[in-house]
Amino acid sequence: MEIKDFVRDRAIEARKGARALLRATSEQKNRVLTSMAEGILAMREDLKAENEKDIAYAREKGLSSAMIDRLTLTDKRIDEMAVGLREVAALPDPVGEVVRMWQRPNGMTVGRMRVPIGVIGIIYESRPNVTAEATSLCLKAGNAVLLRGGSEAINSNRAIVGVLRKALAGAGLPEGVVSFIDTPDRQAVMEMLSLEGIVDLIIPRGGEGLIRTVTENSRIPVLKHYKGVCHVFVDRDADLPMAEEICFNAKTQRPGTCNAMETMLVDEKIAGEFLPLILKRFSDAGVKIRGCEKTREIFGEAEPAEEKDFYNEYLDLILNVKVVRDMDDAMDHIATYSSFHTETIVTENYHRAMRFLREVDSAAVMVNASTRLHDGGQFGLGAEIGISTDKIHARGSMGLEELTCTKFIVLGTGQIRE
Amino acid sequence: MEIKDFVRDRAIEARKGARALLRATSEQKNRVLTSMAEGILAMREDLKAENEKDIAYAREKGLSSAMIDRLTLTDKRIDEMAVGLREVAALPDPVGEVVRMWQRPNGMTVGRMRVPIGVIGIIYESRPNVTAEATSLCLKAGNAVLLRGGSEAINSNRAIVGVLRKALAGAGLPEGVVSFIDTPDRQAVMEMLSLEGIVDLIIPRGGEGLIRTVTENSRIPVLKHYKGVCHVFVDRDADLPMAEEICFNAKTQRPGTCNAMETMLVDEKIAGEFLPLILKRFSDAGVKIRGCEKTREIFGEAEPAEEKDFYNEYLDLILNVKVVRDMDDAMDHIATYSSFHTETIVTENYHRAMRFLREVDSAAVMVNASTRLHDGGQFGLGAEIGISTDKIHARGSMGLEELTCTKFIVLGTGQIRE
Repeated sequence: MEIKDFVRDRAIEARKGARALLRATSEQKNRVLTSMAEGILAMREDLKAENEKDIAYAREKGLSSAMIDRLTLTDKRIDEMAVGLREVAALPDPVGEVVRMWQRPNGMTVGRMRVPIGVIGIIYESRPNVTAEATSLCLKAGNAVLLRGGSEAINSNRAIVGVLRKALAGAGLPEGVVSFIDTPDRQAVMEMLSLEGIVDLIIPRGGEGLIRTVTENSRIPVLKHYKGVCHVFVDRDADLPMAEEICFNAKTQRPGTCNAMETMLVDEKIAGEFLPLILKRFSDAGVKIRGCEKTREIFGEAEPAEEKDFYNEYLDLILNVKVVRDMDDAMDHIATYSSFHTETIVTENYHRAMRFLREVDSAAVMVNASTRLHDGGQFGLGAEIGISTDKIHARGSMGLEELTCTKFIVLGTGQIRE
Repeated sequence: MEIKDFVRDRAIEARKGARALLRATSEQKNRVLTSMAEGILAMREDLKAENEKDIAYAREKGLSSAMIDRLTLTDKRIDEMAVGLREVAALPDPVGEVVRMWQRPNGMTVGRMRVPIGVIGIIYESRPNVTAEATSLCLKAGNAVLLRGGSEAINSNRAIVGVLRKALAGAGLPEGVVSFIDTPDRQAVMEMLSLEGIVDLIIPRGGEGLIRTVTENSRIPVLKHYKGVCHVFVDRDADLPMAEEICFNAKTQRPGTCNAMETMLVDEKIAGEFLPLILKRFSDAGVKIRGCEKTREIFGEAEPAEEKDFYNEYLDLILNVKVVRDMDDAMDHIATYSSFHTETIVTENYHRAMRFLREVDSAAVMVNASTRLHDGGQFGLGAEIGISTDKIHARGSMGLEELTCTKFIVLGTGQIRE
C-alpha cells in the first residue's frame, strides 16, 4: 500500500474512534484509563523486551548515550506510565461542561458546551513513554489520537499501543481511538500534516527542529511549545532578599527547563546593592554570568554578554545579566528578546506591578514569584500536555481544557428568524 | 523596494502599533472609533471619487455586475460604515477581563486575563467596507491590523485607510495600528502568510477559493469561515406545525446565507404526514426539491437527489430532502455530509434532544430553533467577525472575545518552586 493511503486509513480509523467517544461517559473513559494502567504493568516484561530491540538497534546505529537514555524503558519509567494513567483517570472530565448559558429576548437559551476536539495528531521523538502520557490526556478529554513516534522507538511504541488498544477493546470502545502510524517512513509525517478535515489538531512534542518542520508544513492547526527565554526584572522598589530568593530559584532549581530564567534585568538604582550579593551566590552555585558593561563593573568575574546571548535559551547554569534604566527599559528588552513564555517583576510598587502585568505580552506574567512556578501542576490545572507560547487556542500551561473546544447549544421552543 | 521587504515593513509597523495598544484604555479606543466614524462621513465625497476610479477600471476590465455591485460605495454603504464604527465603540471592551482567578496552596493567586492577540492580518476581496468593519472589531479588542484588500478596490481601500489612520494620529496612537499593503502585487499575500512571529493571526474574508489558498499557504494560524451545509432533522416526536415553521424559515428567510438549511431530514414515521404539507409550501414559495426515493413517492414533483447534492451549499431556493429511519440514521447522514456549521433537531422527545445536543459535532447544535438564528447578533455577542467552522481557538459565531486571547497572571508574595 502506498504510504499516503496507509496514513490516511489510520487517520480515518481515528476519526471513527473520535465519533464513538462522543457518546462515552466519564466513567467509561476512566475505566479504560485504569485498565490501560493495569495492562502496562501486566505486560512489563514484554514492553522491556521490545524496548531492548530498539536499544540494540540504536547502539548499532551509534546514537548518543543521551538519546539512548531517553529511549530506555526502565522499571521506574514503566511504573510512572501506569501511575500517570491512573492520575489522569482521577482528574475531573472537562467534557460536557456548559461554560456559560444565557437567554435571548425571544426566549431561546444559548450556551457554550465544552466538547472534544476530535482527532489529535501527536508527533514526537524518542521517548516511548510519551505514547501513554499524551494518549491518556487526549482520551480523557474525549479525543482520539493519531500517534507518530520516533522511528528509533518503533518497537517500544508498537508494544505500548498494543496494550492501550487492548484496553479499549475490552471496554467496548473502538481500537481506532488510539491509532498508530506503524512505519519508519519519514514521508508519513508529511502525509499526516496534509489530512485537513480528518485530523483536527497537531501537537508536536520534541525539540525546536521538529516543531519548526511541523509548523512549516502543516495545513492543520498546530499547538506549539517553543523555547522559553524567561526574564526576571528586579525593580528599584523590590524587596531585595525576596528578589534574591526568586532569582536564585528561577535560575538554579532546575536549569534545564523551559521556565527557568535566562536573563536577569536589574534596575540601575539598586544594581550596586543587589548585584554583588546575588552574583556571588550564583557564582558559588556554579552559575556562569554573562553581563552588560555595568554588570561587569560591579562584578569583574562576569564575561561580557554579546547581543545574541540575549536570545539564547541556555537550559544550563549560564545567566545573562543586564542593568536597565527603569521598568520601561526592562519591558523594551523583554519585547525584543523574549520568547514570551514567562516573565516576572519583583517589586513592592503597586503602580509598576499593575503596569507590568498588563503591558508585558507573555504567556505568563508574574509579580513576586519564581518563573519556575509556570507549570500545570503548580497552577492547579491537574495535568499538562505542554506550555504554549502561541496565542491562538491555548496560551501558557495547557491542561485538559485546552484539549477541548466549545460548541454553541441552543434550547429553543420554536424560535425562527424574523 | 522588493515586495518581501515592503510587506515585512508594513507588518513591523503594525507590530509597533500593537505594542502601543497594550497601554490604550477603552476610552481611548472608543474615541478613536468615533472619530473614525466622523472622518468617514466628512470624507464622503473623496471616498466616492476614489471608488469611482476602481469602478471605472473594473468596467474596463469587464468584471461582472455582481462584482461591481460589491465594489461600489453608495451613500448608504458609507453611512453604514460610520454606524458600524459607532456601534463597535458602544460595545463592552473584552480586554483586561480576568476570566477566572484562584488561589494555590502556597498562597499565590493565579488568574487568566483577557488580552489582545496582537497583529491580525485581514485578507479580503472586493468589498471596500470590510476595511472599516474588520478594523473596528480588531481595534476594539486591542489588535493592530495588517490589511490586504482586493486589488480591484485598491483606490477605495487606500482612501478609507487614510481616514482611519488620521483618526489614530489625532488620538496620539501610532498610525501603524492600521497598516495597509498598498500594492496590487499578488505575491504580497504569500509574503504576508510567511510572517510568523510578526503577524499572530490571519482572517480571510471571502469565497472558498480565497480561504483555501490562505489555509494551504499560511504558516500563521488562520481563522476560517468555510461553507455552511446545514441540516434540520424532523424527529418522529416533533410538533409538526413547529417543524413546518422552523424548516420554512431555515430555508427561505434568506437562502443566500451560510446558516440557511440545505438538507431536511425527516423521520420515516412522520414523513407521510409531514412531507405533503411542507413540500407544498416550499413549492409554492419557489423552492425546488431534490428528494430521496421515498420523498419522491410522497411528492412526485421532486427531482431525484444525487449523492453529490448532499455535499452542496446551494445558497439558493433549492433543498435536499431525505427520509431517514430514525435519529441515528439522521446523525450518520450529518456526520457524513455536513460542513459542521449548524444543525437543528425538531422534537418533543427529551432523550433524543439531549443525545442530539451532545453527539452532533457542529459549531452550533439546536433544539427547536431555526438554523438562521446562528448569528452573533441573534446570540447576543454584539458584533460578529464571522462564523468559524474550525474547532481551534474559535468555533461558531465569533465576536470580540474571539479576537482576544488570555494570558496567565500571577500575584505572588515571594513564592518559589520547592
